[in-house]
Amino acid sequence: MNDTQTEQKLKVLVLHGPNLNLLGRREPEIYGNMTLSDIDAALNEQAAKHDIILRIVQSNHEGVLIDAIHAAIDWADGILINAGAFTHTSIALRDALAGVNLPAVEVHLSNICAREAFRHRSLIAPVCVGQISGFGWRNYLLGLTALVDVLSTHKEEEE
Amino acid sequence: MNDTQTEQKLKVLVLHGPNLNLLGRREPEIYGNMTLSDIDAALNEQAAKHDIILRIVQSNHEGVLIDAIHAAIDWADGILINAGAFTHTSIALRDALAGVNLPAVEVHLSNICAREAFRHRSLIAPVCVGQISGFGWRNYLLGLTALVDVLSTHKEEEE
Amino acid sequence: MNDTQTEQKLKVLVLHGPNLNLLGRREPEIYGNMTLSDIDAALNEQAAKHDIILRIVQSNHEGVLIDAIHAAIDWADGILINAGAFTHTSIALRDALAGVNLPAVEVHLSNICAREAFRHRSLIAPVCVGQISGFGWRNYLLGLTALVDVLSTHKEEEE
Amino acid sequence: MNDTQTEQKLKVLVLHGPNLNLLGRREPEIYGNMTLSDIDAALNEQAAKHDIILRIVQSNHEGVLIDAIHAAIDWADGILINAGAFTHTSIALRDALAGVNLPAVEVHLSNICAREAFRHRSLIAPVCVGQISGFGWRNYLLGLTALVDVLSTHKEEEE
Amino acid sequence: MNDTQTEQKLKVLVLHGPNLNLLGRREPEIYGNMTLSDIDAALNEQAAKHDIILRIVQSNHEGVLIDAIHAAIDWADGILINAGAFTHTSIALRDALAGVNLPAVEVHLSNICAREAFRHRSLIAPVCVGQISGFGWRNYLLGLTALVDVLSTHKEEEE
Amino acid sequence: MNDTQTEQKLKVLVLHGPNLNLLGRREPEIYGNMTLSDIDAALNEQAAKHDIILRIVQSNHEGVLIDAIHAAIDWADGILINAGAFTHTSIALRDALAGVNLPAVEVHLSNICAREAFRHRSLIAPVCVGQISGFGWRNYLLGLTALVDVLSTHKEEEE
Amino acid sequence: MNDTQTEQKLKVLVLHGPNLNLLGRREPEIYGNMTLSDIDAALNEQAAKHDIILRIVQSNHEGVLIDAIHAAIDWADGILINAGAFTHTSIALRDALAGVNLPAVEVHLSNICAREAFRHRSLIAPVCVGQISGFGWRNYLLGLTALVDVLSTHKEEEE
Amino acid sequence: MNDTQTEQKLKVLVLHGPNLNLLGRREPEIYGNMTLSDIDAALNEQAAKHDIILRIVQSNHEGVLIDAIHAAIDWADGILINAGAFTHTSIALRDALAGVNLPAVEVHLSNICAREAFRHRSLIAPVCVGQISGFGWRNYLLGLTALVDVLSTHKEEEE
Amino acid sequence: MNDTQTEQKLKVLVLHGPNLNLLGRREPEIYGNMTLSDIDAALNEQAAKHDIILRIVQSNHEGVLIDAIHAAIDWADGILINAGAFTHTSIALRDALAGVNLPAVEVHLSNICAREAFRHRSLIAPVCVGQISGFGWRNYLLGLTALVDVLSTHKEEEE
Amino acid sequence: MNDTQTEQKLKVLVLHGPNLNLLGRREPEIYGNMTLSDIDAALNEQAAKHDIILRIVQSNHEGVLIDAIHAAIDWADGILINAGAFTHTSIALRDALAGVNLPAVEVHLSNICAREAFRHRSLIAPVCVGQISGFGWRNYLLGLTALVDVLSTHKEEEE
Amino acid sequence: MNDTQTEQKLKVLVLHGPNLNLLGRREPEIYGNMTLSDIDAALNEQAAKHDIILRIVQSNHEGVLIDAIHAAIDWADGILINAGAFTHTSIALRDALAGVNLPAVEVHLSNICAREAFRHRSLIAPVCVGQISGFGWRNYLLGLTALVDVLSTHKEEEE
Amino acid sequence: MNDTQTEQKLKVLVLHGPNLNLLGRREPEIYGNMTLSDIDAALNEQAAKHDIILRIVQSNHEGVLIDAIHAAIDWADGILINAGAFTHTSIALRDALAGVNLPAVEVHLSNICAREAFRHRSLIAPVCVGQISGFGWRNYLLGLTALVDVLSTHKEEEE
Repeated sequence: MNDTQTEQKLKVLVLHGPNLNLLGRREPEIYGNMTLSDIDAALNEQAAKHDIILRIVQSNHEGVLIDAIHAAIDWADGILINAGAFTHTSIALRDALAGVNLPAVEVHLSNICAREAFRHRSLIAPVCVGQISGFGWRNYLLGLTALVDVLSTHKEEEE
Repeated sequence: MNDTQTEQKLKVLVLHGPNLNLLGRREPEIYGNMTLSDIDAALNEQAAKHDIILRIVQSNHEGVLIDAIHAAIDWADGILINAGAFTHTSIALRDALAGVNLPAVEVHLSNICAREAFRHRSLIAPVCVGQISGFGWRNYLLGLTALVDVLSTHKEEEE
Repeated sequence: MNDTQTEQKLKVLVLHGPNLNLLGRREPEIYGNMTLSDIDAALNEQAAKHDIILRIVQSNHEGVLIDAIHAAIDWADGILINAGAFTHTSIALRDALAGVNLPAVEVHLSNICAREAFRHRSLIAPVCVGQISGFGWRNYLLGLTALVDVLSTHKEEEE
Repeated sequence: MNDTQTEQKLKVLVLHGPNLNLLGRREPEIYGNMTLSDIDAALNEQAAKHDIILRIVQSNHEGVLIDAIHAAIDWADGILINAGAFTHTSIALRDALAGVNLPAVEVHLSNICAREAFRHRSLIAPVCVGQISGFGWRNYLLGLTALVDVLSTHKEEEE
Repeated sequence: MNDTQTEQKLKVLVLHGPNLNLLGRREPEIYGNMTLSDIDAALNEQAAKHDIILRIVQSNHEGVLIDAIHAAIDWADGILINAGAFTHTSIALRDALAGVNLPAVEVHLSNICAREAFRHRSLIAPVCVGQISGFGWRNYLLGLTALVDVLSTHKEEEE
Repeated sequence: MNDTQTEQKLKVLVLHGPNLNLLGRREPEIYGNMTLSDIDAALNEQAAKHDIILRIVQSNHEGVLIDAIHAAIDWADGILINAGAFTHTSIALRDALAGVNLPAVEVHLSNICAREAFRHRSLIAPVCVGQISGFGWRNYLLGLTALVDVLSTHKEEEE
Repeated sequence: MNDTQTEQKLKVLVLHGPNLNLLGRREPEIYGNMTLSDIDAALNEQAAKHDIILRIVQSNHEGVLIDAIHAAIDWADGILINAGAFTHTSIALRDALAGVNLPAVEVHLSNICAREAFRHRSLIAPVCVGQISGFGWRNYLLGLTALVDVLSTHKEEEE
Repeated sequence: MNDTQTEQKLKVLVLHGPNLNLLGRREPEIYGNMTLSDIDAALNEQAAKHDIILRIVQSNHEGVLIDAIHAAIDWADGILINAGAFTHTSIALRDALAGVNLPAVEVHLSNICAREAFRHRSLIAPVCVGQISGFGWRNYLLGLTALVDVLSTHKEEEE
Repeated sequence: MNDTQTEQKLKVLVLHGPNLNLLGRREPEIYGNMTLSDIDAALNEQAAKHDIILRIVQSNHEGVLIDAIHAAIDWADGILINAGAFTHTSIALRDALAGVNLPAVEVHLSNICAREAFRHRSLIAPVCVGQISGFGWRNYLLGLTALVDVLSTHKEEEE
Repeated sequence: MNDTQTEQKLKVLVLHGPNLNLLGRREPEIYGNMTLSDIDAALNEQAAKHDIILRIVQSNHEGVLIDAIHAAIDWADGILINAGAFTHTSIALRDALAGVNLPAVEVHLSNICAREAFRHRSLIAPVCVGQISGFGWRNYLLGLTALVDVLSTHKEEEE
Repeated sequence: MNDTQTEQKLKVLVLHGPNLNLLGRREPEIYGNMTLSDIDAALNEQAAKHDIILRIVQSNHEGVLIDAIHAAIDWADGILINAGAFTHTSIALRDALAGVNLPAVEVHLSNICAREAFRHRSLIAPVCVGQISGFGWRNYLLGLTALVDVLSTHKEEEE
Repeated sequence: MNDTQTEQKLKVLVLHGPNLNLLGRREPEIYGNMTLSDIDAALNEQAAKHDIILRIVQSNHEGVLIDAIHAAIDWADGILINAGAFTHTSIALRDALAGVNLPAVEVHLSNICAREAFRHRSLIAPVCVGQISGFGWRNYLLGLTALVDVLSTHKEEEE
């Protein structure tokens, strides 16, 4: 594989927000039994099939997630993000996504509309292309599919 | 193909709510250029590939949609629904979905979180398995994929 | 029986709103095991005992319910109504009841005050004579008793 | 009649809340012309017909009503309550009803939904079996009928 | 009259929402004594004077009104609508008006600002050209005048 | 003095609500230094001058205040009330005042509008003739003057 | 023309509220290009045709508008008012209109329902006969027509 | 009378807000039949009895009332104010009262708590010594009594 | 033991609000299995160990609790209070605590923040030194420890 | 100085809203000790240094301020405004600023965010270029600096 | 001491949230004069007495606190937490506590109910066993006592 | 330069909150084209002119900003802060500013009042001396000027 080919591959930043590292241990009746490693493996497998390059970051620190989004400006074509609890409280994360101006897809493991009222509002939704929630870990795969679809259309339009 | 085989195919009710028949004519900057027939064709094509049987209903009448959901009790394995404006106003539709107790997936053409405040709340979300919004007509295909995934897992667990 | 006698019998329109046709199938832990036919049979039995004529309509279409209320102007003495989910959303139904100006009694199968917040407000309550809720299918029989009581008092006062 | 028979009769506590002693004097356009004695007489008459034992308490003191509910633990099978204005303000009364864990039926003389906004919410409704409102003094008789119905079903189930 | 002339006449869809068929019977102290036929006659008379073609639809069914709006795409130049109670509850009707993109004028028989709070908000107002309320049946005539004015200006600008 | 003369004297019930017995001890920077006995003495002195008969009741029990209002039906011409904290929480007290239908004047020692938000709303104000607040113990004297004025006008009109 | 005839002519006060003197200069995309003089000329022309006498006042001072309304008591038969921004903030203006008890018609140049939330509520609407908004300067002519209609009916009823 | 004596008399500014000049003409069922001149005469009579000097200002202009309050700094000992509709909307009036730092008493002709919700909040109440409302024109006399009482106490304390 | 020693012992009023007499019978999954006598015994035991004198009052009557607080002025050094449901509704109780000006500690058996919304606000919290909730009957012992700690510090500071 | 030079100087309207004429007398702990003349002198001094022409208007009349803004259309390059209490209540002032379309800078003497809730919202902020608050009288000088900066940039861009 | 013994000792994570490192320097009238070291020393002393092992973490970084909670899964028996300002804003912290599923006790130095409204809601309270607030630094000691009590009961139940 | 001189120079901490490092790249239509380095250079230039020492910190981590504020206790005389999105969500930042008790000035690049509703409230405003917003990067220079002014006055008063 040469540089030019690398250039042509789609590059996606995958962000896991706070407490997602507990997956598989934490409230399995809500979040299921898969660990984050399992999800990352599934994502990498799907990415490999479609020649997509992934960079995966998990953090419980809002600032680390923002820094990662900023770092994506010069590298990524799009962002797949499960912001966890920050979804409902972080305007800073929203501004980061708006600031780097990359297509982003928001996923949630659980159906947030069926939970506590303070989880109903997503601050980042209005700056994302779309949302997928309620299908557990499969949301990530659906989200990656959707994001790649969006990115492909963009690429075509640019050519 | 014999009856037993038909029995074993997944059967999905696809519901299009009010004004979706205008697709392609109505506010294309929000809803895109594809017509509802185009979407139905794409859905049927995907269904054919996976041996799924679809029944597709569009109506501007809340009562017709409810009747269709009721009729699905004895036939369908799951429901794919874009309730359009009824998403935000119809408790009756929500009760119908809860009443037939079939896995339902909610899709929206647009990113409803980025529009008027009265479109932010979905009355049917809490009785659906999950939601997909913001990717235009592709939501339907993603939704069908997700629904079939959910249904397959159910089937396996039952066996 | 001659015409004059028929004239003197009380005539009551019974309205069942959306999803009530699912009774017995739908969420039995909330709504109980009786079907709508069972309830109609019980209502007819009680009506027969007291020489009351019933006309019973169930519909999932708000418009059909409104039409039925309008049609009652020239026939009925009173209305017994379980508006289901429309109780909380339909100003049109409320206006219909107010417009025909017939005594109406509102019943609910479940104790709506003990359920989701959006079921706490009844738009039609202020234009009804009274409400009965929480006693399951028996609400209909209690409601018919109460309505006939109200109508009898009216009749007496008019004579 | 012997002790065993007394044991088998249903026993109901009837509670009248604040200002109900004014009935017949107070705002007759809202509450009607019957006095509380008239209502109690009607209740006793109906109770006698069905072999029910009533204990009737009226008080303008929240504490007296709570004490009466507590005292009912060792005696009553159910409670018929018109909590008057306390309906809308007394969490203590609600807790008392929840604490003794006896089936309770809430009645109101007037249609509270058609009056001032602060009368629309009933704090005790969620801990009662059901509510009846709007039929004036007749609510008490309907309420007793409903309560006895509920209690009879309970008894049967226990046997 | 030949086809070309017909083409050049203004064509207006007049929509009467739920319960307006009761006009003259329903709460005359609010809505006046004229029947809907009287109003339609007056509208037709005014239309005839100005060479305008009217198509008039009344329905208590939200879906029928939406269908009528859709059908107007290929025929009408503008819409005169009294959505009745749907004014305050139907996002679907709003979307229909926005979707067909025809100039619409909203009229109300009564002064809705002087009535119950839930009648103060009009969901369709923001997608209409203007509103007229409070002058009883004359609102229709004023509304037709205003709509024709708007349409004439449009026509002139296009030429 | 003979009975007839007594009959002709104005009779006023003065009610002091909860915690007013603490006056002079309790938060003097808000309520001043006079004790309740001092105020009652001043009221009696003013009453004596104008041939008014007072009955004065203080209680920390809502029920006692309600009972006292009821007892006033057969005796008093008007009521002077400082309901203290019950002003903001007791619908029962409001109903009692409305029920006995005697002119009532509401007084407050402090300027309640300048204190905590939960003291801004008076539930009893709408059933009183008027309110006086902010002038400390003098409110009682002003209130008595105002009440007598109101009662005198009533008497004259009746004659 | 003699005095008697003058007496018989309808007399209308036309009020223009704050900033309307800027018309034609101010935000033409919202308010159009006509100046206030143009509108006044159009109003006078229409008035002349129907033998109506107009008195026209524009002011940026709330007090001047109130004074003008008061002065109309002894002269005018009705009021045509565009209160501009005072529509949403001036209870004093509302009280003035209610106080003089003359039929008033409220007009707005723009469709206020489609603008900022703080422009959605009209404090004066409940004391006006009706409202017309959204048709630009033509609202004034429609409003005058409507007002004269209302006044003529009144006159007839009085005779 | 010499200067020193004049100096020692209490001086009170009486302010009548918007529309109070209509008194006697405007909504007499709410505001009574006395005109503002009648009230001013009664105030002057009472003032004369107690050697108080009054300066009385009525205006429909918020600015005039504010200017009058400012002018009172160098002359008045206290302010008696019925701010009318400005009570509920004018922070500027509140700031003026707070700015001149003179004891002020707020009066209202009607019982504002028993009227529309937007009349329940008084913006000026927190900067006044006290309020009197509900006794019609007599409020002014009661208010003057109360204000003079307050001022006398102040004077005594200063001496 | 002589008088001086008695004087030097700390004296604490313990208040149990409404329905706490049901403890052990009432909703044990929320409130646990201990009876109020058990708790009082535990409190007395702890008090005996630290030479503290307790006076314990339980009542379902708000007025009785207020009277008890007033009576504590001349006797107690501090108050330990579980106001039960009155916590959320009684401003009078709050005023009583503020009025006697004794250090008070608020305890709750259950974690009120994890229950219904109307139990989240404590009206008495702002006038207490501190709160302890969620540890069941042990809250009383922790509360007594905390109160004695506070009182000891006060005593020391005074000496 | 010749006409051309005058033309080239920046011209600024300075507006002081209600009660600012009291500065130095009114609540100095909030507003400081400088009088309005002192501030005007400081402004004129700074203006002189930078060859700016000022026109300064103070009024307690909303209408006078609006008139002054209108008059600025043909004269000023920008507006420096402290609208005082009108900041929070006057939509008319906002419309005036938007209508003349001149760059405006909003200043406040005090830190309005740290005061009463009703002072937190500025109605004019959204139509101004920027705000400065909290630095006392110095806000005016900072505001003039900022405004001139803005105007200079505009001028340069136009050239 | 051998490993088995260490195993049997209770192990508690103590978390101090943002700004608590300023204790003793920051607003002593609210938070007291003790430094965080003083508190930690007191905690350690109490822990030593009861053979409890403490791990103490203070951080101004929400992410550090979350990481510490996660790390406690494999080590601690319970958590004592003063989340400071994060109490009111961090859903992520709440999710962390819920995720590790260890008994947690929430403490606050000040009586948060008596401070600004935005400090009244605790997001973490519903996932903690209980709360203690208002007793200054002593809350930590009370909290440790309560937590150990809870843990001991758990241990016993497990054995 | 000797130590004494350094001591006498004003020392200011400049804080840039989240996403400000993107300046020049991020949404230039809102935030302008200057980079953060450009702004820092301008600030340093101005500081140099006035012999002020600056320490400049930018971070996307709330905790880093809080730590920097704490570190300023022993070094800085004042703080210039643009907290970015944390302005609206971080109580911890507010507490940090309040805790170190140094004069702080809040600046914003954009006019936050003219943007989304969730950007209208500043949590830190009440603990800052003043705010400047809307003039783009120049806010920083104006803010530094204002802060130095404030600090100089303080210094003078202390001397």
